[in-house]
Amino acid sequence: MGIVVVIDVLRATSAMVTAFEHGVARIIPVATIEEATQYIGLPGYIVAAERDGEVVEGFQFGNSPLAFRDRELVAGKTIVITTTNGTRTINLARNAKQLVIGSFLNLSALSEWLVEQNDNVLLLCSGWRDKFNLEDSIFAGAVMDRLLNSGKFGSEEDSSIAAKYLFMAAQENLLSLLKAAPRRKRLEQLKLLDDVKFCLTPDQSRVIPIYREGVLVPLVPEAVAAR
Amino acid sequence: MGIVVVIDVLRATSAMVTAFEHGVARIIPVATIEEATQYIGLPGYIVAAERDGEVVEGFQFGNSPLAFRDRELVAGKTIVITTTNGTRTINLARNAKQLVIGSFLNLSALSEWLVEQNDNVLLLCSGWRDKFNLEDSIFAGAVMDRLLNSGKFGSEEDSSIAAKYLFMAAQENLLSLLKAAPRRKRLEQLKLLDDVKFCLTPDQSRVIPIYREGVLVPLVPEAVAAR
Repeated sequence: MGIVVVIDVLRATSAMVTAFEHGVARIIPVATIEEATQYIGLPGYIVAAERDGEVVEGFQFGNSPLAFRDRELVAGKTIVITTTNGTRTINLARNAKQLVIGSFLNLSALSEWLVEQNDNVLLLCSGWRDKFNLEDSIFAGAVMDRLLNSGKFGSEEDSSIAAKYLFMAAQENLLSLLKAAPRRKRLEQLKLLDDVKFCLTPDQSRVIPIYREGVLVPLVPEAVAAR
Repeated sequence: MGIVVVIDVLRATSAMVTAFEHGVARIIPVATIEEATQYIGLPGYIVAAERDGEVVEGFQFGNSPLAFRDRELVAGKTIVITTTNGTRTINLARNAKQLVIGSFLNLSALSEWLVEQNDNVLLLCSGWRDKFNLEDSIFAGAVMDRLLNSGKFGSEEDSSIAAKYLFMAAQENLLSLLKAAPRRKRLEQLKLLDDVKFCLTPDQSRVIPIYREGVLVPLVPEAVAAR
């Protein structure tokens, strides 16, 4: 199988990269709200739960990346998080040889690291409730564009070629393409416009979250290269 | 549900449109080779079976549209056909309010008819063995482009927006985009280049095959309009 990149641009994987960028020590993705509840009140833990785009009642955080930018609050902490789509996708792929987290925020760092690994890559889009969504596929297309341009990768699937073309059509104005999307999306985006703009801004971080024994930890490519 | 358009550009739905264009009376799509076998030798029947791109041994035809252009051979006949992906998709959608067959060959006739129906439309791509493929999605994008331009349709799904963008990126040279696709496709296309060129040529027919009680028959829009 090789490397699986889990993608949930709006907003789980963007939030994870943001949290690590601001000093979070580790992230424990859990499948259910019940599991997440067990961590509430434990010292050193921040517990986050999102369903259908909202913070679940009784929880301090949802999946908004903006909330994880407070370094004083989050540095050194463990985040326990459950989300509608993203953490479920991590669970699906947890037996991959390597599982890493992708978002526009770490696009370049992730793409460069993937090119160095000399392994097969599966770009796994979370989508929305088992359905295709634009933002995850556009991001997958951005990674495909980098990988194909490296000369070290080909494509085994038509879907990755389509994603690359979608990214090429979308890249000049990601936000306006999403605004042209179906009604559910439009409403969501009006409500979450600051989040969406943040999540579509590439290369805000060099951190690559990597999954090790049930926990995400930050892999910093420069550190790897310096070994 | 409304209207379901079954799409299998390479090659089942292109073959069906071609057959009706050359005078075939009806087409019976069947799921298995065993079912198709029962019709072999019956007067007035042409029996076609394709698996993995090849004519199944013992059958006269596969799913090549070129083979159905011989008017003397096919006019007035009933075709019984089973294919790897296309006939399976028809079976999946057989309970739709209306089920019609789409391909580049009848793109304009189909799109105009859909605009007139004032109903919901699902563009159902057969893909390849449960996976996304480029040619079916590009065709769905071509139909989306027509429907959205009519001003009578919106989009309920991100996938239809993505298909439209994919079509816009692909439309100037469909064949070269498919040639850039994964290896399996490239090999197939070298072998089937005449078929592929034919299947990507729009508006060769005004016939819209429509499914009625287990059988496809030709619906000719002009005839409907003249009622």
